[in-house]
Amino acid sequence: MAIVTESNIAGKNCFTEKNLEHCTIVIIGASGDLTSRKLVPALFNLYLNNGLPDAFHIVGCSRTELSSQEFKNKIQSSLKKDRDLNFSDWQSFSASLFYKSINYDDVSSFISLAEYLKSLDKKSNTPANRIFYLAIPPSIYKTVAKMIGQAGLAEEGKNGNGWSRIVVEKPFGRDLESATDLDQSLHEDFKESQIFRIDHYLAKETVQNILMFRFANSIFEPIWNRRYIDNVSITAAESVGVEHRAGYYEQAGVLRDMFQNHMMQLLALTAMDPPSLFQAKPVRDEKIRVFRAVRPFSLSSLKDFLILGQYGAGVIDGKEVIGYREESGVSPDSVIPTFAMMKIFIDNWRWQGVPFYLMSGKRLTGKMTQIVIQFKEVPHSMFRKVLGEHITANHLILGIYPDERITLTFQTKNPGTKVCLRSVTMDFFYHQNSQGQIFDAYEKVLIDCILGDQMLFWQQEGVELCWSFLTPILKECEDCSDRSKLLHLYDAGSRGPDIIGSSYRFPDK
Amino acid sequence: MAIVTESNIAGKNCFTEKNLEHCTIVIIGASGDLTSRKLVPALFNLYLNNGLPDAFHIVGCSRTELSSQEFKNKIQSSLKKDRDLNFSDWQSFSASLFYKSINYDDVSSFISLAEYLKSLDKKSNTPANRIFYLAIPPSIYKTVAKMIGQAGLAEEGKNGNGWSRIVVEKPFGRDLESATDLDQSLHEDFKESQIFRIDHYLAKETVQNILMFRFANSIFEPIWNRRYIDNVSITAAESVGVEHRAGYYEQAGVLRDMFQNHMMQLLALTAMDPPSLFQAKPVRDEKIRVFRAVRPFSLSSLKDFLILGQYGAGVIDGKEVIGYREESGVSPDSVIPTFAMMKIFIDNWRWQGVPFYLMSGKRLTGKMTQIVIQFKEVPHSMFRKVLGEHITANHLILGIYPDERITLTFQTKNPGTKVCLRSVTMDFFYHQNSQGQIFDAYEKVLIDCILGDQMLFWQQEGVELCWSFLTPILKECEDCSDRSKLLHLYDAGSRGPDIIGSSYRFPDK
Repeated sequence: MAIVTESNIAGKNCFTEKNLEHCTIVIIGASGDLTSRKLVPALFNLYLNNGLPDAFHIVGCSRTELSSQEFKNKIQSSLKKDRDLNFSDWQSFSASLFYKSINYDDVSSFISLAEYLKSLDKKSNTPANRIFYLAIPPSIYKTVAKMIGQAGLAEEGKNGNGWSRIVVEKPFGRDLESATDLDQSLHEDFKESQIFRIDHYLAKETVQNILMFRFANSIFEPIWNRRYIDNVSITAAESVGVEHRAGYYEQAGVLRDMFQNHMMQLLALTAMDPPSLFQAKPVRDEKIRVFRAVRPFSLSSLKDFLILGQYGAGVIDGKEVIGYREESGVSPDSVIPTFAMMKIFIDNWRWQGVPFYLMSGKRLTGKMTQIVIQFKEVPHSMFRKVLGEHITANHLILGIYPDERITLTFQTKNPGTKVCLRSVTMDFFYHQNSQGQIFDAYEKVLIDCILGDQMLFWQQEGVELCWSFLTPILKECEDCSDRSKLLHLYDAGSRGPDIIGSSYRFPDK
Repeated sequence: MAIVTESNIAGKNCFTEKNLEHCTIVIIGASGDLTSRKLVPALFNLYLNNGLPDAFHIVGCSRTELSSQEFKNKIQSSLKKDRDLNFSDWQSFSASLFYKSINYDDVSSFISLAEYLKSLDKKSNTPANRIFYLAIPPSIYKTVAKMIGQAGLAEEGKNGNGWSRIVVEKPFGRDLESATDLDQSLHEDFKESQIFRIDHYLAKETVQNILMFRFANSIFEPIWNRRYIDNVSITAAESVGVEHRAGYYEQAGVLRDMFQNHMMQLLALTAMDPPSLFQAKPVRDEKIRVFRAVRPFSLSSLKDFLILGQYGAGVIDGKEVIGYREESGVSPDSVIPTFAMMKIFIDNWRWQGVPFYLMSGKRLTGKMTQIVIQFKEVPHSMFRKVLGEHITANHLILGIYPDERITLTFQTKNPGTKVCLRSVTMDFFYHQNSQGQIFDAYEKVLIDCILGDQMLFWQQEGVELCWSFLTPILKECEDCSDRSKLLHLYDAGSRGPDIIGSSYRFPDK
């Protein structure tokens, strides 16, 4: 996370960084969808809002043979589909845009890239800082990382290099073994401080805000524990189906797609102890401590802790939609889960006995991401003779999508001469009264790569601890003789499998 | 406070009481201002909203000779000035309205009243329950109470009486001695359970809500103590001057007028421990425990704990207003304070070391009543390298007037790529989404008298403990050779004497 030294004044210079060092952003896989849909638009928007260094190069690389001008034209025509962008500055931005074709498994091709990068820096007399953004399939991460290393581009402060960083997106492996294997390959040429493992969820404003909310206020931390909290539910519900990603999803399923990364990060942010400093290492170490304390599921009673589901046909927003097994590219007898709910316990002093319900699924009734802190009831109700024993307990909602908000529900006197309580809410909407440019998660991630700030990126130890937790579960689910036994069908547009029943409070809209 | 057995369902039957017993409300002092301006309008409004028993009598008594019809006419013409009232039901309401002239110091006159009351109940075949509401100057409380007693009207269950209650309004004496003296007189004929000492502040919805807010929610009580709270400020500011009450105010001053009653009650509600039951005795006993723990002021360093002020001329709402000493009926060299601020400490485990700033005054910048709970700063700021050591601490505002609201101020991330915090608020407005008739404080008090519920009334022990605290201070202020030394002048329309400076946060607005 970007660190600034200015004082804490609301609305003052919170939007753009100063003193960003010159660097070259090398996009490996530049002819792909990610580059034209996400990366270059993000870089262009940063440029428009002074979010890039004064001097920078962007070098697209892929197998396609293109001139730099052809690459610029290609990108520009793709960008123009986006009506929100202001093209008056395109000319000056694209002057820093270049293209170099490469073969992903050919070291001479990368050596030639290295020379090209050097010549760029020489021409503009800028330091040779580089970010290698791997916008390629994970299956070739290892190969490309090795090529970068062999071309002498990985080592910092040598071969005329300044700093050098490599950016990879999830999935980081598909189980503990493959994740460790990938990491070992990356580490052959890169140190941990050079490796940026992206989780875009972490760069969302409201996700970042969780830490501020918890640790910049004195009133929440004292009650943020097993003594006052009854349970926590973390929900990331989607209304979309598998869309065009069936090939990937049939291999992954919801556990790899959502739990190994986003859900575990939300869990860590909610459950972690306060770090001593708001810096990458202390913050990421506190998350590690949470992951380490997650109680492994008992495989013999998996059903008590895990509910898997797969969507059937149904109705979403008034439209009939097909079931998962009917989707193009999905096996008609697929037992891949599109829904999971986990009941997680964290074995430490703070959280002993408090269930964390993690739920994510596709084709649910709506798209919503939120964390609900359900507090316990009052220990003693002085109102019991008047109102009965039960008083609705407080809860706090940290809304991430669609409403970026914080909502506190509490009891208050219902106006009138009698003693009646009613549940009321106080709401804070995150963007209320905020001014200035908000960068999206991709943009934020790019800035942090340039700054070399790893706070919002996965640490390998965290990746491995989460895989350690999930791998036995995946193995049990995938290897057992009848995988479909664990799987509950649910109608598209519903709140998930019926079995969830009332044990889990699906968030209100 | 009225107690009902219905369950806790928002909006359901919270407005009116059922099963109110028949009673006769005897207003002693019925020709006075209070009766026509407050009491009868309140009773009529209760009647219109089913807030009175099915059968009731209202008997006005005063020295003036009037027939019941003349009394009705007088009241009606006075009521008609109030445009909000619906007169279509006046006829049926006023059928229960009667008048009986009395001499306040003549026992035969009260014996005749007793016979009159009996005849009313006989005629309508209703039980002889009576409320004697003393709408007379406090100087004749003792006399009238004695007459009621001597006429056999005080003793419950005897002389054909049902229950019998006496209602008195503040001031309850002007120091400890006179308060004790008044109380002894009342107790000659009435038991404590029959004596209702009104404090209208206590019947305000939002004042009542303080207890619900604190004790029907599990999340506030854990942080409601010296460990998390830095200070508490309780403000009752008025923009009006002494108005037509100079005669009274020159004798009372702000300490007797506001602190002996309202301010001490707000202090008790804010600081008290949770009662075991929401009933008159346990609730009032908890308040007593607070009063008992209030640390007496050191008279030798009074200035460290007490600031007194008196308004001079100034401007309020754009209009020039005169100073206190120029007011009609005020001595031109009056040293009566119209403003006071106290720094009170409560010597118990919960509050040791936490200052409670009580402030009230006339002719201040605006009318406002509120309690601000100022929490401590975070014990450790993980953001110190980014934001400096200081992070604005949380505060909670319980607004009583003009906004009946609860506001929580906390820190959140300022949207943007940098780490910036901003203070934001969550607000709950008390009447938001509430439905149905809201009774005002007078109406609420009358209902509770009929119900015999003393929760919202002063207990004599509390009156005496507060006088024990205030009397030495008053004595020191009033008896010292140069009273004006303690008194700071302030401009009307200001925030009080300059000496307050920044040590006290005058509420925004």
